[in-house]
Amino acid sequence: MRLSAADVEAGYALACQTVVEGDARVRVPPQEKIERLLETDKTAAKITVPFFYDPVQHQSIRRVCLHIESPSLADNTDDMSRLRRALAQETGITDVRARLPMLQKLAAVLRSGDWNVTVVIETDTWDMPGGPPRLVDVLLGDRSDENWGLAIDIGTTSNVVYLVDLLTGDVIQQAADYNGQIRRGEDVISRIIYASKNGGLEELQGLVVGTLNKLIGRVCRQQEIQPSGIHKATVAGNSTMMHLFLALPPQSIRLEPYVTTVNEVPSVRAAEIGLNINPEATVDCLPGVASYVGADITAGVVSSGMLDVGDITLFIDVGTNGEIVLGDGSWLITCACSAGPAFEGAGVVHGMRATRGAIEDVWINGATAEPSYRVIGGGKPKGICGSGLINLLAEMFITGVIDKSGNLNHSLNTPRVRTGEHGDEYVIAWGAETDHGDDIVITPPDIDNLLRAKAAIYAGFASLAQSVGVDVGDVHQMFIGGAFGQYLNVEKAVQIGLLPDLSWDKFHFLGNTSVKGAYMALLRRDIRAEIDAAASKMTYLELSADNTFYEHFTSALFLPHTDIERFPSVAAVLEESRS
Amino acid sequence: MRLSAADVEAGYALACQTVVEGDARVRVPPQEKIERLLETDKTAAKITVPFFYDPVQHQSIRRVCLHIESPSLADNTDDMSRLRRALAQETGITDVRARLPMLQKLAAVLRSGDWNVTVVIETDTWDMPGGPPRLVDVLLGDRSDENWGLAIDIGTTSNVVYLVDLLTGDVIQQAADYNGQIRRGEDVISRIIYASKNGGLEELQGLVVGTLNKLIGRVCRQQEIQPSGIHKATVAGNSTMMHLFLALPPQSIRLEPYVTTVNEVPSVRAAEIGLNINPEATVDCLPGVASYVGADITAGVVSSGMLDVGDITLFIDVGTNGEIVLGDGSWLITCACSAGPAFEGAGVVHGMRATRGAIEDVWINGATAEPSYRVIGGGKPKGICGSGLINLLAEMFITGVIDKSGNLNHSLNTPRVRTGEHGDEYVIAWGAETDHGDDIVITPPDIDNLLRAKAAIYAGFASLAQSVGVDVGDVHQMFIGGAFGQYLNVEKAVQIGLLPDLSWDKFHFLGNTSVKGAYMALLRRDIRAEIDAAASKMTYLELSADNTFYEHFTSALFLPHTDIERFPSVAAVLEESRS
Repeated sequence: MRLSAADVEAGYALACQTVVEGDARVRVPPQEKIERLLETDKTAAKITVPFFYDPVQHQSIRRVCLHIESPSLADNTDDMSRLRRALAQETGITDVRARLPMLQKLAAVLRSGDWNVTVVIETDTWDMPGGPPRLVDVLLGDRSDENWGLAIDIGTTSNVVYLVDLLTGDVIQQAADYNGQIRRGEDVISRIIYASKNGGLEELQGLVVGTLNKLIGRVCRQQEIQPSGIHKATVAGNSTMMHLFLALPPQSIRLEPYVTTVNEVPSVRAAEIGLNINPEATVDCLPGVASYVGADITAGVVSSGMLDVGDITLFIDVGTNGEIVLGDGSWLITCACSAGPAFEGAGVVHGMRATRGAIEDVWINGATAEPSYRVIGGGKPKGICGSGLINLLAEMFITGVIDKSGNLNHSLNTPRVRTGEHGDEYVIAWGAETDHGDDIVITPPDIDNLLRAKAAIYAGFASLAQSVGVDVGDVHQMFIGGAFGQYLNVEKAVQIGLLPDLSWDKFHFLGNTSVKGAYMALLRRDIRAEIDAAASKMTYLELSADNTFYEHFTSALFLPHTDIERFPSVAAVLEESRS
Repeated sequence: MRLSAADVEAGYALACQTVVEGDARVRVPPQEKIERLLETDKTAAKITVPFFYDPVQHQSIRRVCLHIESPSLADNTDDMSRLRRALAQETGITDVRARLPMLQKLAAVLRSGDWNVTVVIETDTWDMPGGPPRLVDVLLGDRSDENWGLAIDIGTTSNVVYLVDLLTGDVIQQAADYNGQIRRGEDVISRIIYASKNGGLEELQGLVVGTLNKLIGRVCRQQEIQPSGIHKATVAGNSTMMHLFLALPPQSIRLEPYVTTVNEVPSVRAAEIGLNINPEATVDCLPGVASYVGADITAGVVSSGMLDVGDITLFIDVGTNGEIVLGDGSWLITCACSAGPAFEGAGVVHGMRATRGAIEDVWINGATAEPSYRVIGGGKPKGICGSGLINLLAEMFITGVIDKSGNLNHSLNTPRVRTGEHGDEYVIAWGAETDHGDDIVITPPDIDNLLRAKAAIYAGFASLAQSVGVDVGDVHQMFIGGAFGQYLNVEKAVQIGLLPDLSWDKFHFLGNTSVKGAYMALLRRDIRAEIDAAASKMTYLELSADNTFYEHFTSALFLPHTDIERFPSVAAVLEESRS
């Protein structure tokens, strides 16, 4: 946010423009307060498993109650072999393996449980299919009437956990919160830079695990279970988030040629990363494809059902970045667009995150250029969030407040278009209406940022399509994932040229496809294998090495596009509104 | 040691006989000083591999130098996949797995080594034969001209490590020291009791690992390598030592029905137990059979060659306990005798460990009953160690100083047999000759302790033999392992009835068969599998549940045995000496 004359008079200066010549006291303002309930807290009702799930056939984690024969002088077989023998008799499972921490507690549990125990057995993990089963836990008495797992989505901005009943497959509790790493950088790039500082990687790892542990504590309290009773977790997230979660140095993700340490992450145990579930629990991090197409996208592709539809489908997840997948299931091509954080309100004078007080929708009266708007939480507006900005841009364009290049129309007879302190601007809300008493405006630099963001995403679609010889208009359906998608107005998004001009019934909003994919992989081994197969199958198109991307980008810097024929429905609306 | 009148006068009292009625200051005397070089330090020369060894065919650890293609925009495959690809091209090894700590360092090593690295790969571990290979380490540059492993023997009394060149199979360095746990108890029973105290188990684990780390540091300094350059260790030791090494609670080993937590220990990584070699290195603990027949014995059976001879063989390892194996390779039966620590000098008035100042050999003149003796280190004697006690007992018996029940012959014309402060005794060394100025004597209770110890071992032989319908005299050869065996005089041991009366050429002294077994298993996968097979094949005879043991024990409480016909060579010597 630039400074007004009043700000300057009050002694404010821009840190980035100021040379410190002597000692200075630096005060970092408290983190922006989270005032809007996160999506998942609003829909925190139980989710009934939406597909066929058989815990014996599909699940890698199983609880079995065992009555083990106690030892005698005539049979002084060791504890572990007795357990093995009883398990084989009860289930036919042989050759179960125990790691050291399990053996360290075995003698005491067997004896205090009078040789009646419940064993938690893991079989056929994704990275060792057909490998030996593993003893994950031994519990006193019969505890086979429950079995818990966790699906986790690590977003750059927000983290989500689902507590899942592995017997029924239902999501019993869910919780979400902002990623604690935000205090060290809003986007992946600033986090990667922070991670390269001394101790930075460990700090960021601790911050995200801290957030997740808080959420785990919350769902466990709600359900009245112990975190140690959760014996498996599946994790989705973009490649940078996955690196930071696992304390893998992420530097090479940021530097050309943009390489991750590993896309197909091995199973780790919760204790290795400090996740507060059972320390022996497998934490299964889903596979990514490249530095900027991570496990959130492979999870999303599978959970969206894109692999099953058979028609050419476009999948997009607009979060802090925009990742796009095009394909029909038999082939898949993917790319990532550095849309920048404009749709999250960054780089825009009155931009803000989609929290309480954000203008989330705007309509402009074509005759008067007077706007009306809707505010999240209903009170006075403080700023404008991503969905509000898209709708504002579309309305300004359709009503002629701006032209196809995004220039403000000063010939309109309205005080809303004016030259203010920061230069030209359009006033969305007068100070009298706002929370802070200042006018909420949008300026030409804001509009340029938004045009670049939407152009990057459209150029991503166009580049992918061109690379396989398909026209964007040939897409049979478009799946939109990510929290952002849920608030997106398709009509307006098409009008600014962010989304291709398809008929509205072809757009499907799928919400958080990343956590859904983690949830599905948590439950079903076959779906976990599908995610692996999808990751292997995806061809990654590196846009920074692709000249056609820049051509598409340049063409898409207009509203809706240089070539209006690509947007016939928008042409029709313009025709109508200006007639 | 009981108190003399002078001691009592000086104010000494026996702690076990004293009631503390007020505040008291307790002073624990410093640990007995180690003054004798340990066996392995005396023979610390390099050992050339004594059997066929091919590092490619036999070894699970392999170093491979890789020149990995550096990434580009056209090929931004992740680091781990690049390593995999290069390894497959170089060696044909596919599907190598890396655990998290390896991935955490991968990016930095690859880049600082300019993509020229040496990978350490582990294949076919004993507990996952045919399983996926594992990336154990990544080193800068070409380091494929070396490869290090460690063979470890954890004795109750002393610990031994061999530093092994895995390229040639030779033992390059070795070191030994007393087990640091000694300060918390001399024998396994007192250590098990200590382990049940709060924090006791963790302390004992730390003590033995501390001793081993000191030895590892010593061999690494001698060879001028880093401990992190050792990528595999194989460990032998009795079941209690193995439990304490792995921090497995050992309580049930001591309590009827004497059950271990686990006999077949899974592979652990060095980091899990704090062993100071490469943290990712596999530490392979060899399998035991029962609470009192541990991995030291399975390792000993295989390293002794007992499985290959085809004839009925008796193997015995007399350490702090006596473990015996009888068999011909196609069958094996084993038992453990609580010989007690008499042969280590405990429970004997002037008994001491085999350190500097101990009388290790004694001869008695049959005419005068005058003894002569040899002292370890050559100086004045301080006491008498196990081998000295056996030889003393035999000489006293053959020369008639004691009768077959161990009673002193007071009718001899010698001041050596007398009634002293503690009652009857035989004087081995007059105060004028000794280090401390006091007479060194042996008393009837000492003799009883020694008789019980030797009777327990002989009863073990006899019980094993009877259980399979074999006569002890039918044994074709006898293998004697353990440090104790090295100082044992067969003639004298037979004369007291500790060893069966076989012709001398049937006795083979093999030294520390436990560390030899660990060394062989370290080098050769097939030998490691043989040890597993031997452990599975051994039938354990629980003597405490066997009445015949007590009958044999009672019969063996005489010199050499109730039934002198079992010891014809001794009968002949007696005949001769008394004629």
